[in-house]
Amino acid sequence: MSALLRTSVRLRPLTPSIFGAAFRPAALTMSNKYSSLSTPPSCYADFCLIPVGTGSTSVAKEVAEVQRLLENSGLKYTMHSAGTTVEGSWDEVFKVIGQAHALVHQTGAPRVQTSMRVGTRTDKKQTAEDKIKRVKDLLAGDK
Amino acid sequence: MSALLRTSVRLRPLTPSIFGAAFRPAALTMSNKYSSLSTPPSCYADFCLIPVGTGSTSVAKEVAEVQRLLENSGLKYTMHSAGTTVEGSWDEVFKVIGQAHALVHQTGAPRVQTSMRVGTRTDKKQTAEDKIKRVKDLLAGDK
Amino acid sequence: MSALLRTSVRLRPLTPSIFGAAFRPAALTMSNKYSSLSTPPSCYADFCLIPVGTGSTSVAKEVAEVQRLLENSGLKYTMHSAGTTVEGSWDEVFKVIGQAHALVHQTGAPRVQTSMRVGTRTDKKQTAEDKIKRVKDLLAGDK
Amino acid sequence: MSALLRTSVRLRPLTPSIFGAAFRPAALTMSNKYSSLSTPPSCYADFCLIPVGTGSTSVAKEVAEVQRLLENSGLKYTMHSAGTTVEGSWDEVFKVIGQAHALVHQTGAPRVQTSMRVGTRTDKKQTAEDKIKRVKDLLAGDK
Repeated sequence: MSALLRTSVRLRPLTPSIFGAAFRPAALTMSNKYSSLSTPPSCYADFCLIPVGTGSTSVAKEVAEVQRLLENSGLKYTMHSAGTTVEGSWDEVFKVIGQAHALVHQTGAPRVQTSMRVGTRTDKKQTAEDKIKRVKDLLAGDK
Repeated sequence: MSALLRTSVRLRPLTPSIFGAAFRPAALTMSNKYSSLSTPPSCYADFCLIPVGTGSTSVAKEVAEVQRLLENSGLKYTMHSAGTTVEGSWDEVFKVIGQAHALVHQTGAPRVQTSMRVGTRTDKKQTAEDKIKRVKDLLAGDK
Repeated sequence: MSALLRTSVRLRPLTPSIFGAAFRPAALTMSNKYSSLSTPPSCYADFCLIPVGTGSTSVAKEVAEVQRLLENSGLKYTMHSAGTTVEGSWDEVFKVIGQAHALVHQTGAPRVQTSMRVGTRTDKKQTAEDKIKRVKDLLAGDK
Repeated sequence: MSALLRTSVRLRPLTPSIFGAAFRPAALTMSNKYSSLSTPPSCYADFCLIPVGTGSTSVAKEVAEVQRLLENSGLKYTMHSAGTTVEGSWDEVFKVIGQAHALVHQTGAPRVQTSMRVGTRTDKKQTAEDKIKRVKDLLAGDK
């Protein structure tokens, strides 16, 4: 195992083919290449969570409870009428959304269904606020 | 054909079973039942449109152009950092989102991909603003 | 009104600026530019519809009913475990999904929430089957 | 800090109110309640990942690469024409989707946008296959 790990450190992620086939069968090479991948350092996730099987059409109580969880997480978040956008590292963001599912199950919903849009980028950092500002600036030029 | 149409006018959509099986085989009954369905009189759609194949990471120009289209449509809409929510009748809302695809193709994107959340309800009318207000009122009670 | 319509027929959609500002104030120009947009001639929509407020965690009955509606529509569709993909013209596809909402309301759900992914492209025609085949061909090359 | 931790171990997640207000101010109670939440032991996520800013309309190469990553993960997954469904624990599933973003960035896409549908349930275990089977069984009854 330690030999494997040492080897994987020396590999450039996308060029395992520079090694001879005799020493590195395809499955092994792949395994190293993929296992060494980290989740993105930053992302945004816009999510809309629906409790299913509660017999109620209102989801406001559950949404409010999820807002409290987000507030407690320390992550940046913004609620809008069709969901909530959270920003942070990939691991933090999906941990808190997973906790949101757990929380809504605790309030009595036997099934929870979430729709998400998730974005990552490597070219620059851009916050939710920046995105809105760019579009508003373009529209301001119309007048 | 004209006999068929005449019959379907007299049917109440969900009770084709009041007719004798001899006269209305299953396939025919179904056809009438489904064809007579109308699209919902009101809905909201929250959508995030992505131009694909443009070679640019920025989508602000396309988003601004879609906001102008929405403004021109006369429908109620709200932009947030991860999409835009439009409210109106089902047909109006999906017509304008279809036009948004056409518009973004015109600006040069050969492929357009949209993620949407759509909601309809029959129990009451609720605007995007109402939804946010309900949650904020619950959270205000925390303090 | 008839003068307006006649003018709009002669306009190429994206070049209203070739007309003098004196004759075509900005708002009017826009209105023509956007009103003349057609919805795309072909698209796919992958949708997952959730009945809300039914008190039941199972959605299989509603999903089956929607499959019958799709069958009846004559459009190409494929069900998978997390949704159904429909292919056709934009107007046909969204008409049938709107009817699906209406149908699920009729079965007793006061609220229906749908998550969709929609794609259009102008560079070539590609069916759902083509898309899967392309990826499978690439993967077949691994062996 | 150690006192806090000790207390939180003794708390049942949803009943902090059994403690006197004098000893547990609201903010503290909340923090414990939310921090102790675990992510769900099982879930499914259906995702469709779009590389943005590549200048190419085809995403087949990237989708194939993500299928190899999923194969390597050991999780159950099914590709369809509009996405891929993965099943596993919440943490495993979102780790591999995060790795998929990282992988697609490595192939050269500066921006990656994903649309997801995620479901968890506490009433029973149900695989992707089970869900399809239930609907097919209902439809088989039509004939």
